[in-house]
Amino acid sequence: MVHSIRVQPQASPTERVAAAFRRIAEVDRQEVWITLRAEDDVAAEAAAVEQRLAEGESLPLAGILVAVKDNIDVAGLPTTAACPEFAYTATVTASSIERLIAAGAIVLGKTNLDQFATGLVGTRSPYGAVRNAHYPELISGGSSSGSAVAVALGIVDIGIGTDTAGSGRVPAALHGIVGIKATLGVIPAHGVIPACADYDAVTVFATDLDRAVAAAAAMAGPEPRDPRSRNWPSDVHLAAPEALRLAIPRAEDLAALSAPYREAFNRTVTAVTGSGAATEEVDISALLDAARLLYDGAIVAERYAAVGKFLATAPAGADPTVSAIIDAARSTTGPGFAEDLETLARTRASAAALLADFHGLLLPTTTEHPSIAAVQADPLTINRRLGTYTNFCNLLDMAAVSVPGLPTVDGLPFGVMVVVPAFADQVAVDIAARIVGADTAATLVDRGTELAVFGAHLRGQPLHWQLTEIGARFAGEIRTTDAYRLTALDTVPPKPGLVRRGDGLGAPILGELFMVSDAGLGRFLAALPTPMALTSIELSDERSVIGFACTYDAAEAATDITSFGSWKAYLQRQN
Amino acid sequence: MVHSIRVQPQASPTERVAAAFRRIAEVDRQEVWITLRAEDDVAAEAAAVEQRLAEGESLPLAGILVAVKDNIDVAGLPTTAACPEFAYTATVTASSIERLIAAGAIVLGKTNLDQFATGLVGTRSPYGAVRNAHYPELISGGSSSGSAVAVALGIVDIGIGTDTAGSGRVPAALHGIVGIKATLGVIPAHGVIPACADYDAVTVFATDLDRAVAAAAAMAGPEPRDPRSRNWPSDVHLAAPEALRLAIPRAEDLAALSAPYREAFNRTVTAVTGSGAATEEVDISALLDAARLLYDGAIVAERYAAVGKFLATAPAGADPTVSAIIDAARSTTGPGFAEDLETLARTRASAAALLADFHGLLLPTTTEHPSIAAVQADPLTINRRLGTYTNFCNLLDMAAVSVPGLPTVDGLPFGVMVVVPAFADQVAVDIAARIVGADTAATLVDRGTELAVFGAHLRGQPLHWQLTEIGARFAGEIRTTDAYRLTALDTVPPKPGLVRRGDGLGAPILGELFMVSDAGLGRFLAALPTPMALTSIELSDERSVIGFACTYDAAEAATDITSFGSWKAYLQRQN
Repeated sequence: MVHSIRVQPQASPTERVAAAFRRIAEVDRQEVWITLRAEDDVAAEAAAVEQRLAEGESLPLAGILVAVKDNIDVAGLPTTAACPEFAYTATVTASSIERLIAAGAIVLGKTNLDQFATGLVGTRSPYGAVRNAHYPELISGGSSSGSAVAVALGIVDIGIGTDTAGSGRVPAALHGIVGIKATLGVIPAHGVIPACADYDAVTVFATDLDRAVAAAAAMAGPEPRDPRSRNWPSDVHLAAPEALRLAIPRAEDLAALSAPYREAFNRTVTAVTGSGAATEEVDISALLDAARLLYDGAIVAERYAAVGKFLATAPAGADPTVSAIIDAARSTTGPGFAEDLETLARTRASAAALLADFHGLLLPTTTEHPSIAAVQADPLTINRRLGTYTNFCNLLDMAAVSVPGLPTVDGLPFGVMVVVPAFADQVAVDIAARIVGADTAATLVDRGTELAVFGAHLRGQPLHWQLTEIGARFAGEIRTTDAYRLTALDTVPPKPGLVRRGDGLGAPILGELFMVSDAGLGRFLAALPTPMALTSIELSDERSVIGFACTYDAAEAATDITSFGSWKAYLQRQN
Repeated sequence: MVHSIRVQPQASPTERVAAAFRRIAEVDRQEVWITLRAEDDVAAEAAAVEQRLAEGESLPLAGILVAVKDNIDVAGLPTTAACPEFAYTATVTASSIERLIAAGAIVLGKTNLDQFATGLVGTRSPYGAVRNAHYPELISGGSSSGSAVAVALGIVDIGIGTDTAGSGRVPAALHGIVGIKATLGVIPAHGVIPACADYDAVTVFATDLDRAVAAAAAMAGPEPRDPRSRNWPSDVHLAAPEALRLAIPRAEDLAALSAPYREAFNRTVTAVTGSGAATEEVDISALLDAARLLYDGAIVAERYAAVGKFLATAPAGADPTVSAIIDAARSTTGPGFAEDLETLARTRASAAALLADFHGLLLPTTTEHPSIAAVQADPLTINRRLGTYTNFCNLLDMAAVSVPGLPTVDGLPFGVMVVVPAFADQVAVDIAARIVGADTAATLVDRGTELAVFGAHLRGQPLHWQLTEIGARFAGEIRTTDAYRLTALDTVPPKPGLVRRGDGLGAPILGELFMVSDAGLGRFLAALPTPMALTSIELSDERSVIGFACTYDAAEAATDITSFGSWKAYLQRQN
């Protein structure tokens, strides 16, 4: 809808590594890295990936270079959380990173962050304030600052961050790149230094949405070593529908925005609406109120529980702002915590009700693009404002994808965010894809069953809505073997009956394949009217998938239309 | 397995009310009730229920008399939570009670409880210590004391309680009755004075398991007015399998039991094993450790958040033990709360892993049956011990059903508890039914689709395990219309093909009906091998259900065996 994101050309893993190190030298941004691996070590891994490819392994992320936020463990490298005194050498790689490596990705190094992932600015680190990739006097955003800048500078393909209050989205917005914060627990937090353990998500930055989705998909899935790990539910939606209904905030809910961001948000909404999505204003004040609980309430006690005792030793490298925030959490009370949980439970329910009629909530990712000097002069106020639209997301168990919106009138990047309920991640990705002008989006949620349709459920046909309703995802056109005959049944609306007669006794029949969730398939079957049936269908590519058939008596009474080769061809010739 | 529970005979609603008031006079247990409704009012409602029945309404709980714990709102009656100064007259009936009334049940009054539902003893109330129904010198158990005693005395059919630490199970065990504590959120907590809002469940007492299940089923279901309301998931299991595997505690995990209870538990386990269930000892120490967090940790701050400020006004009717517990919660800290949440998250995950290979965990419901005098002499120690096996359940998001085990050698009731993961409630009910010697159990979870099978998936046939695996529930034998012919297919294992030829062109074919979850049905279909199909099948009772068919070519090649009327008859004649 708005504009396309540039996809980087593919190079060999070895070439990619060499290019990355050339780029590192060229940009001279030492504050991005806390630990940069030796080029020889990385190059050796690239060669190993090439070897795996040569041996025929299928590696979806072959040679993809990754920057890892330094609050996530990579075996053999130090983890500092941006506090030198906290450092230890990890012996086990975080599950998320392990999965990226298994898919062929290569870790280039560990990146700078707002200390203990506390901040949205990127300046709270003894390893240096991380400057914006394109506007060095402006902030990078945080806390996943180094990973975002490493992506935006073109050093790496994927930056891995974490996001409790918006740390995986604000830096994306401030660089015009993509940030995916999946539903809590979907990408394991194993091997991550907790910020607020109940509300921490591992996130992905990339310049390209599909690449970010591919990385997120590789990292997603149940993990016994993460006690908060969650799998996609069996009724997960696998696609956004064609006709989008998006909630947008009322004008008064946008009061926190700077003038240029407000103007950019309005233009972005206009562009989204112009490309066919229906938008409707909703009152998000309850969400914005809940957002304040992350730092102003007692929930921040989770930060104290994680690293409070360590910071109480007053390490020399402690960032004073971070220390002050976490130390203040010591005085939060149990009853205060309980009251905040009650508020969150109520807001979670009311947010679900508020968004029930929409496919997503469209928000500005952050409020403005401040300078490093401004943030250093006032370390709290601006930081707090930056999280206005991101803070509530994890507290209320929602997922979000931040993509570039239309730039500000000054040409600065502006980020727009699609927010959805827990587990509607694929819906958010699909909506985000349309915002950036892509026709299709990569698959994030890979849980489901293939279903082949040949008639009234094809795209554009009268019963296609039944697939939309169960969140089915279009997976391509297919053709049966020549064992099938196509018949026209005497039904309302008209439907074909696909009849298996045996190899060579029919013709390849054209249909469409969809991915559906287990529960979606069950519900679809439960609503199936006579004489339709579902059975195993053999495809011309030698796969078998579940697809349509009809009862014996209906097949007997139907008209043979095999010669048309497809239901759509039959409908067209008939007219 | 162990023994049967007596089912009370059915009387007309009016007769039932009259009998209840006669029984109230007879037993003279005024401490059971905080508010007993006037007999005329209750009788008028009974007459109204009779009128609804006469008008043809279907009322599954017609004339069932209900005692409601006095921390649950019933419009027009005071809610006291057993503290006179706290009292207010409710204007809205709690959702759970509203649903019982809609199903034909009649509320007799509001019952005594451990004040603010804080206690497992039944003695902590200014309305009097609630004496055990059968052994007046012994405790009733609490906190849902009055509701349990009203059931055990035969005054009411159903007692409604609440359960945070075991309040819906301990009194059941001490009376030899049934207590069902469903998964948190399944029965709405709307209209309930919170104890710990995140861990409160509305519960059911009855002498008969099926009646308790019927009441629980009537109360279950999503409720927008309860922010913690949860629906059965789309992959919910709808039955326990035939071959049960039960986890039981190691001997050292039973150290808290009194000698007679330990002996009764061991005999009960032997009886359960003897009736065919496989049992295996597991280490439940992590669960027992987590249990202590409910009062010894910071979670008790939720009690302070609920009523702490009220109790700080030092009302005259405050129970000193309850006040002391809740007041102490004021000094819990935010970081302490966060640490306890972390412990709970880890224990929840390890408990899930521990029980993954079992259908349920069999535990003693409580540890002993103390006297009222003993509890009054030491109000804390015994109370704490009574919750050893119940406290962890809500903290770890588990469901539990307490039923009578074999009595102690002294003839005292002894309760045994089936504990299962969240949403496996029907599995727990089915296991509990077998423990009390019932062949079948009533349906608690009514979410799913009917699936008709005619061959290899019938009970006792080689593919029946596929239905067991998806938690399918047997729902009876069925017969098709005469539109179907039965054929024998050339498959391994041998399977029939049900072929629809048209009305009058076949014969009624005998099959079995199962309830399956949406996701279970989807997974079943996804695994369906050629040439099997699923379609809509017309039954002789004029219903249509999803059931088996086969592809056209397979039907053509198969042998007609319609004359046998069923696959099992065909298999038998063949041998």
